[in-house]
Amino acid sequence: MLETAVAPLSFDEKLEGARESAIVLATVTTDLKNRALEAIAAAIETSAGEVVPANDLDLANGRENGLSEALQDRLRLDSARLASLAAAVREIIALTDPVGEAVQGRNLPNGVRIDQVRVPFGVVGAIYEARPNVTVDIAALALKSGNAVVLRGGSAAENTNRVLVALIQEALASVGLPAASVQTIDEFGRDGAKRLMQARGAVDVLIPRGSAQLIETVVTESKVPVIETGAGVVHVFLDESARLDWAVDIVHNAKVQRPSVCNALETLLVHEAAAPRVLPAVLERLREAGVVLHADEATRGLFPDAVPASEEDWATEYMSLDLAVRVVRDLDEAMEHIRRYSTHHTESIITNDLGNAERFLNEVDSAVVMVNASTRFTDGGEFGFGAEVGISTQKLHARGPMGLPELTSTKWLVRGSGQHRA
Amino acid sequence: MLETAVAPLSFDEKLEGARESAIVLATVTTDLKNRALEAIAAAIETSAGEVVPANDLDLANGRENGLSEALQDRLRLDSARLASLAAAVREIIALTDPVGEAVQGRNLPNGVRIDQVRVPFGVVGAIYEARPNVTVDIAALALKSGNAVVLRGGSAAENTNRVLVALIQEALASVGLPAASVQTIDEFGRDGAKRLMQARGAVDVLIPRGSAQLIETVVTESKVPVIETGAGVVHVFLDESARLDWAVDIVHNAKVQRPSVCNALETLLVHEAAAPRVLPAVLERLREAGVVLHADEATRGLFPDAVPASEEDWATEYMSLDLAVRVVRDLDEAMEHIRRYSTHHTESIITNDLGNAERFLNEVDSAVVMVNASTRFTDGGEFGFGAEVGISTQKLHARGPMGLPELTSTKWLVRGSGQHRA
Repeated sequence: MLETAVAPLSFDEKLEGARESAIVLATVTTDLKNRALEAIAAAIETSAGEVVPANDLDLANGRENGLSEALQDRLRLDSARLASLAAAVREIIALTDPVGEAVQGRNLPNGVRIDQVRVPFGVVGAIYEARPNVTVDIAALALKSGNAVVLRGGSAAENTNRVLVALIQEALASVGLPAASVQTIDEFGRDGAKRLMQARGAVDVLIPRGSAQLIETVVTESKVPVIETGAGVVHVFLDESARLDWAVDIVHNAKVQRPSVCNALETLLVHEAAAPRVLPAVLERLREAGVVLHADEATRGLFPDAVPASEEDWATEYMSLDLAVRVVRDLDEAMEHIRRYSTHHTESIITNDLGNAERFLNEVDSAVVMVNASTRFTDGGEFGFGAEVGISTQKLHARGPMGLPELTSTKWLVRGSGQHRA
Repeated sequence: MLETAVAPLSFDEKLEGARESAIVLATVTTDLKNRALEAIAAAIETSAGEVVPANDLDLANGRENGLSEALQDRLRLDSARLASLAAAVREIIALTDPVGEAVQGRNLPNGVRIDQVRVPFGVVGAIYEARPNVTVDIAALALKSGNAVVLRGGSAAENTNRVLVALIQEALASVGLPAASVQTIDEFGRDGAKRLMQARGAVDVLIPRGSAQLIETVVTESKVPVIETGAGVVHVFLDESARLDWAVDIVHNAKVQRPSVCNALETLLVHEAAAPRVLPAVLERLREAGVVLHADEATRGLFPDAVPASEEDWATEYMSLDLAVRVVRDLDEAMEHIRRYSTHHTESIITNDLGNAERFLNEVDSAVVMVNASTRFTDGGEFGFGAEVGISTQKLHARGPMGLPELTSTKWLVRGSGQHRA
């Protein structure tokens, strides 16, 4: 036995490593961070030989534990997916570095200069579920914004994540940045996730990504401040004056284009005076696309074979080709329905009535409120942010699609010449 | 018995009232909010007849329960203090309404227009301790920013707060705004505070104001997102090149002008090469002002009668005429000390070395980092915000002095003409 056994790092040692790395990352140049990202991209795209066997092991364990086909698919990595992960990292290189950006600044009457500038949070924690692409994605976004990151990606992807994080750490070291900037704590299991949620002071912000249940757990248990990226029970309201072609196209696009995502339509509300005119064409188009309608009585008067909607349907994020449909008396009843059942993600009104459009924009309390547009536009890429950090459904810090600036805090720089307070 | 007994509102009814009021407040004009504030100011300045007897009752209870003289003084309201409270409300009338302010906006390539605008949080919760001025202050700030507010001001001020809130509610009703916009839950005691911290969804953000212990409790127990307005273990570092007159004036101002507030100096660090030159004059001036020095050995070489500093002193927010003093080897040791003991509120370097000034600004991770200025400038009023919402020591949402905009969230308004996603 000539080799020295290296003891695996403890949970606290990993958090300490992240904290120390964050001090370095906070002041490195954009050039150096971009070189690290390029090294990561290069490592990922040639990593199939190391990643795929580890991923196969996770997939075999998953099958044994009854992981659904859909979740197995999210877990799977192959050469093509690794190449597109590497491409995503290179897209982040092209984004503007938010660190140092001036938010506001002025000279005080006494000659003191104050400037508010963006700074990294420090250590970002991420809790997510068996999606190894998130490991690379969050690590790259955190690094570009100057943050260290502690990843808890779920035991179902533990082997894959371990290899990916090792690759990222080697890439960081190859350009002279601390390897400990990116950490995985998967090996500590559920206990690790719990400890991460208690690590106030050691972790500056926690971002959960995944199922509504996971997010709920993190939001209620965490003592670390959380950015909630929540579920979308998304509504479209077809007002009395809705243009038929817009109604048909927007509802179809919002429901059918990608039903499994949070900005997809879940409940369609229709003004009773518009229902006979617009519903037949709107719903016919959906049915051709295979959408199952869960409808109230009024709608079933027009579409008798629709499934009767229950109270539960109004609160459901289907994430599938299902749609709840309800006829309402007027804009007020539509907004009352939205107030009651919405998760405050995205709502859209289709109307040609200026007064109703403005009331909807002002009175609906959601992260994104639209007039005559598809709810699918609620997206960092579509909004021009370049990166998809997630969509916040909370009101603190960030609301709606988040870009790199939402991964930063600010600080005030005050420059004086001997001033003191009178 | 001809009178009908009115059942007191339950906790849930009060939160529901606040929620419904928030919907109204979110869209009322600035003019109407200002009229409400003027009605509140007018009611407060003529309220001694109602407020003082209630306040006397609280003071009598306080004396019975052993409330300290200092806390009794904070609890006390008289005509003069009511007049200055009314004046503070009128100052808020003069502030710019943050609601509706455009944060950013652009046209997307497909012709969709997106605008991010400020909106009220909705319902703001406040937990504080036996300071009835905070009741009026927070209510006025919340109203101006379009928020309803639920106040838990501590049972020691329960009678005073009940009268103040009743006056505010009457003033709101007198201009046609919902009385339920401002609520007190003092009557539910500790249980009420606990339930407020659990009221995720019903309350949008919670702001604790008061002792470090109170803030710690709220931060760790609350499931509602919290804005932490924390303690200040504030540092000044006298660098090798510090100008003597600036060092003397700034340290004196930072420690002595108002020692009981969070931006007052608590620990003075001095470069060892500057100590013989600057410390005698700096500390002599402090001692003339009655400051008790808690000093390390090197400092005690110059000031033998200083109290020896213990490990505990470096982490203490004295809030009194006490000061910890330590001689350090260089800038790095000063920043290491700050990293270890600071509460990340405010730190200032006194220097004429450009490189050191820039390193201090970039590397010190506090809400406000200064060069050659008194730490007492960390203040909403001094920064030109007009109002004193508090000073945030967390990194999420707001950091440093908070103005009215920090009492708002944002939403995205999206205006299309039939666009859907390709």
